[in-house]
Amino acid sequence: MPQLRKDPVLGRWVIISTERAKRPSDFSAPEQGQRSEPDRCPFCPGNEKMTPPEVTRRPLDGDWRVRVVPNKFPALTVEGGTERAGAGIYDRMNGVGAHEVIIETPEHDRMLADLAPPAIAEVLEVFRARALDLARDERIRYVLVFKNHGLSAGASLSHSHSQLIATPVVPVRVKAELEGAAKYFDFRGRCIFCDMVKQETEERVRLVYENERFVCFEPFAPRFPFETWLLPRAHFSGYDGLSDGHLADLAEALHECLVRMNRALSCPDYNFLVHVAPLVGDGNEHYHFHIELMPKLTRIAGFEVGSGFYINPVPPEEAARFLREA
Amino acid sequence: MPQLRKDPVLGRWVIISTERAKRPSDFSAPEQGQRSEPDRCPFCPGNEKMTPPEVTRRPLDGDWRVRVVPNKFPALTVEGGTERAGAGIYDRMNGVGAHEVIIETPEHDRMLADLAPPAIAEVLEVFRARALDLARDERIRYVLVFKNHGLSAGASLSHSHSQLIATPVVPVRVKAELEGAAKYFDFRGRCIFCDMVKQETEERVRLVYENERFVCFEPFAPRFPFETWLLPRAHFSGYDGLSDGHLADLAEALHECLVRMNRALSCPDYNFLVHVAPLVGDGNEHYHFHIELMPKLTRIAGFEVGSGFYINPVPPEEAARFLREA
Repeated sequence: MPQLRKDPVLGRWVIISTERAKRPSDFSAPEQGQRSEPDRCPFCPGNEKMTPPEVTRRPLDGDWRVRVVPNKFPALTVEGGTERAGAGIYDRMNGVGAHEVIIETPEHDRMLADLAPPAIAEVLEVFRARALDLARDERIRYVLVFKNHGLSAGASLSHSHSQLIATPVVPVRVKAELEGAAKYFDFRGRCIFCDMVKQETEERVRLVYENERFVCFEPFAPRFPFETWLLPRAHFSGYDGLSDGHLADLAEALHECLVRMNRALSCPDYNFLVHVAPLVGDGNEHYHFHIELMPKLTRIAGFEVGSGFYINPVPPEEAARFLREA
Repeated sequence: MPQLRKDPVLGRWVIISTERAKRPSDFSAPEQGQRSEPDRCPFCPGNEKMTPPEVTRRPLDGDWRVRVVPNKFPALTVEGGTERAGAGIYDRMNGVGAHEVIIETPEHDRMLADLAPPAIAEVLEVFRARALDLARDERIRYVLVFKNHGLSAGASLSHSHSQLIATPVVPVRVKAELEGAAKYFDFRGRCIFCDMVKQETEERVRLVYENERFVCFEPFAPRFPFETWLLPRAHFSGYDGLSDGHLADLAEALHECLVRMNRALSCPDYNFLVHVAPLVGDGNEHYHFHIELMPKLTRIAGFEVGSGFYINPVPPEEAARFLREA
């Protein structure tokens, strides 16, 4: 069973996945290519037996358009309690949680950016359904939905998919965002993300795209070149605030951002993450639902890992201009 | 002039380097290879004119064995004040600081791991000298020394070198470590790193190497497979505590860790970082000098970036055993 271990200085939890444990020689093998053939692809229709038993699908009957399966090599597993234990000065707990794969389309060579907004909305609806379903398990404290697209962004299979990991602790990065947002709320009585939406839609220099319910912009202090954030104009903090109208507008906004990114940057590998307030506890007033989209253009080197400081060679105002004009 | 911008939620500073500003097309070009020819290598003897004017060298006269030069494409620059300014809800300041390269050997194809411990000690002595010299500039709050070895770890030139970046703010990661260590000190009255040294040398399951003054082990909750920390047994927090005796033992320990890593993992790319207490402020009692050494074996994907959670497929106890037996 995987173990969660806590860094005693930083309070950051690390997943030590014993089931996928590797030997040193596993690392010297050349990296696996990402292109797979449809007949051997576990995510293609007809090969459903190659995945663990299905969690859900859309539509529920007949041929599927979106399919959710447990990850075959899960970082966390559903069995077991969340007992914590000490080991001298250290702390650990069982690696309880869930790790699921959302197959976004039955078509092997279709990328998320190639899907029409209504098909993207169906994928987003599945994110919402899975997050709200997992939230009913009281061992789960957070559900992180993310996508790795392309080998350099961490995808090991080319058939378009996203993932979710449900964790028994709130991830340190989310916790830091929650604390920062709470501090601002205490001081100003307003949500910092709402203030960002206001400033970005007024100044417009970092704006990439907007529609009725969503605003897409390059953040003021982006870690990565062409990092883009998608925020709802009106305040809500979790999946339960994401109405069907929001889904439609978010799908359109995500499609627009992906297509512009692909045009401006020749279809780069990328990651995106959905940040929501934790499933338990408050955060509804000061935390704001958002998606962070990051093309993989630079390497994270020693300085970044060691300092948490990022060096970004593209001012967000210029990146936004390129994306607006793409 | 580069700009420092603060993420308003996380309080993390980002360097927006306008001088090295890139256009979208710069990212679609294939990545530059890391092998350079000695006759065109700016770090080779005879090509000293290809670098900006030298900062220092060892020995000070005659042929050099170690040479320090400003980075030709600095992330931060020495001119200017540290004025801060607001921009609506955002904050920024001038990108004042220093970015230097430490050329570790005149020999083009010699890697740091190939150097004898006394030659490594001379490189470490230069780290100390540069950090203490930069500390006299009152605009500087932190000096981070790090090494990127190999293209996948962020090195763009193959001739063996380390770097240092001196920043006008304490990096967020160091700040988080300082705060975590201070909390532990408040609660227990002891340095958490001293407690780690004690537990690791008693349990020995994560121990890789030790000598008179230094201890090398896999941390309890490592982010990366085969991540190794090097700590002095006796407490000190900054470069001023690093005596010549420490330099000799640290050089031997670093050499030993690099050689074992190269044997166990077939000479992987790697990063290392030297973590010290900030140059101003306290931290002497609760913060402990250490080096973090991380072979580059896995990719940092969406989940890690979005959550600050790391998935590590190698338990540190197994990694330590492999390295001890290498």
